[in-house]
Amino acid sequence: MADTSLETLVTPAALVDLDRVEANLRRVSQYTREHGLHWRPHTKTHKTAELTSLQLAAGAVGATVATPREAEVMATVATDVLYAYPPVGAGRLARLLALPPRTKLSVTVDTLESLAELSRAAQGAGRDVGVLVELDLGMRRLGVQTPAEAVALARAVATAPSVTYLGVLFYPGHVRSPMNQQDGAVRDQSARLGAFLEALTSAGLKPQVVSGGSTPMLWRSHEVKGLTEIRPGLNVMNDRNTASIGACAWDECAFSVLATVVSTAVPGQVVVDAGSKALTKEEGLAPSGGYGALLDRPDIIVRNVSEEHGMLDVSATSWRPRVGERVRVVPNHVCTAVNLHERLHVVRGGAVTDTWAIAARGW
Amino acid sequence: MADTSLETLVTPAALVDLDRVEANLRRVSQYTREHGLHWRPHTKTHKTAELTSLQLAAGAVGATVATPREAEVMATVATDVLYAYPPVGAGRLARLLALPPRTKLSVTVDTLESLAELSRAAQGAGRDVGVLVELDLGMRRLGVQTPAEAVALARAVATAPSVTYLGVLFYPGHVRSPMNQQDGAVRDQSARLGAFLEALTSAGLKPQVVSGGSTPMLWRSHEVKGLTEIRPGLNVMNDRNTASIGACAWDECAFSVLATVVSTAVPGQVVVDAGSKALTKEEGLAPSGGYGALLDRPDIIVRNVSEEHGMLDVSATSWRPRVGERVRVVPNHVCTAVNLHERLHVVRGGAVTDTWAIAARGW
Repeated sequence: MADTSLETLVTPAALVDLDRVEANLRRVSQYTREHGLHWRPHTKTHKTAELTSLQLAAGAVGATVATPREAEVMATVATDVLYAYPPVGAGRLARLLALPPRTKLSVTVDTLESLAELSRAAQGAGRDVGVLVELDLGMRRLGVQTPAEAVALARAVATAPSVTYLGVLFYPGHVRSPMNQQDGAVRDQSARLGAFLEALTSAGLKPQVVSGGSTPMLWRSHEVKGLTEIRPGLNVMNDRNTASIGACAWDECAFSVLATVVSTAVPGQVVVDAGSKALTKEEGLAPSGGYGALLDRPDIIVRNVSEEHGMLDVSATSWRPRVGERVRVVPNHVCTAVNLHERLHVVRGGAVTDTWAIAARGW
Repeated sequence: MADTSLETLVTPAALVDLDRVEANLRRVSQYTREHGLHWRPHTKTHKTAELTSLQLAAGAVGATVATPREAEVMATVATDVLYAYPPVGAGRLARLLALPPRTKLSVTVDTLESLAELSRAAQGAGRDVGVLVELDLGMRRLGVQTPAEAVALARAVATAPSVTYLGVLFYPGHVRSPMNQQDGAVRDQSARLGAFLEALTSAGLKPQVVSGGSTPMLWRSHEVKGLTEIRPGLNVMNDRNTASIGACAWDECAFSVLATVVSTAVPGQVVVDAGSKALTKEEGLAPSGGYGALLDRPDIIVRNVSEEHGMLDVSATSWRPRVGERVRVVPNHVCTAVNLHERLHVVRGGAVTDTWAIAARGW
């Protein structure tokens, strides 16, 4: 139990509204059940074992992670962990291979070099690792570029020691258009994916797992032909970007940063103690710009930030908070904002009911 | 001693080149001695007690801090701590007032409300706190707006219980032009500051301390009339922004993030494992854009980042690193990049000689 309330917490402080989280989990759980999709949420968004436990209880088949520390923390509660990242480097591999034996570990590869290193290390550790071949469906970040490359890499996986070929993975992170403007993106994704799946199937390498899905495209995942699994991360708490593109409603934003008004010296402006070290200075997708908006007054924007200062633009409103008053800021991007905090204070109604360590920060 | 080398550290990892730090400290120390300025570095840049100790040994008169935790950590090595932030909120004040009795504590105020709260709390704690009145010289972040407001607030400080009026403080963070294009900014600052100093002196409130200075304007501080003290933060390690505006040379950049190449699957691009959670996604001042540049190949830019991925644009070079190779990235902004890491690995030549906790992260 926390010894604090929203009035006494030292600010800035990261808050999660548990009623909203539960509603968000119910929605995705129902959607994936309805459409026969596996749901393997990316836990980089919250980096807490506690939220992973809630996701598993709501029907997630396992945890997706991107760092060794996320793998270690989530393996304390999940028995099925997908390291959706190239497992490159001896230190990284040693830690992944040292996960508890009960952990069903799978990873992604997109180059023959990383496959070779993985296979060698897995052999050395006497452990079998599931492998998904990462495909590039247009994001141009990771992933093999052509069906021929996918076949070559999948064949290499299928024949390498101590690894098991499971299927393919992609991340449509480049699609950020509002849900109702994604027809083209859905068609494009189906077509590109279809070409890869056809080539792999023809080569006798039919994927059992076809893992995709991002929060912006979440609710249209069932329209992407061949998909078996989705890995949305940020929809567990959402953020200003997600609301801006209509992939969630404002009242589905479950994460906020509690901040205190520290100065009203500059006319038309209110300064709070949540700046770039509490919110990030990531530019967002909201047409109104800025680095966040107030949970209870979404028309009030954090117009600018310096490290420990958030400048609220109040010039267009009559609201004039006093020095010492508290507000809650929804950041542009929840995943990188959470990563700036040590603890996540759990709120139900207006009360702090618990405090969780954001244990998987760092690497 | 660290049990690691640049070849075996788990990446991404924050590195500080100690030879470069020492050279940077010598330069600022010599400059401030030459011009009779007090040097009170802002420790938010590095958040380590170790670098504060080196700064004090090089002649700094004390530490500048912006959070209670920075105050607590720096008070373990500095006896003179300036909390250059509005001391608003009971929790914040309680922690500042609980600093060791040997710590000479001063703070800034820019509203009557925060002065009243401070004075009450200091009285309750039986402690006297030095106060600087914050002036706005054009940044429009914090600070009283007019000489008349400065006089009113300084008078209130001078008569409030348990606080001592020391002088004034400002931060010219809005000036980011190259040093050789700052003539106008220097004149503007001198003129604005002059009006405040004149009004305060006429009112019998002549400031003993006139604290200003930022890294971009560091080397022109002596031209600002009336200044007694400067508080540059980032020049201890510098960054890509500082080099971009000519306020440091590239080989004065002492901070970098060690990263491993994890994918070369997309042609013309190399992906490393330092993304926005290791570098930040802060847009910078470099005309070439991006989120950082390679220490040893400054023409190679981190063109884009996602959370755990940095996309190096190699399309204009023949350099083609292999998967597993390591590089060092200089981020746009050192202060917010350091804040993403738990540890700072100390490098001399090519070897890791020590590891410091970045102990003052969080609040």
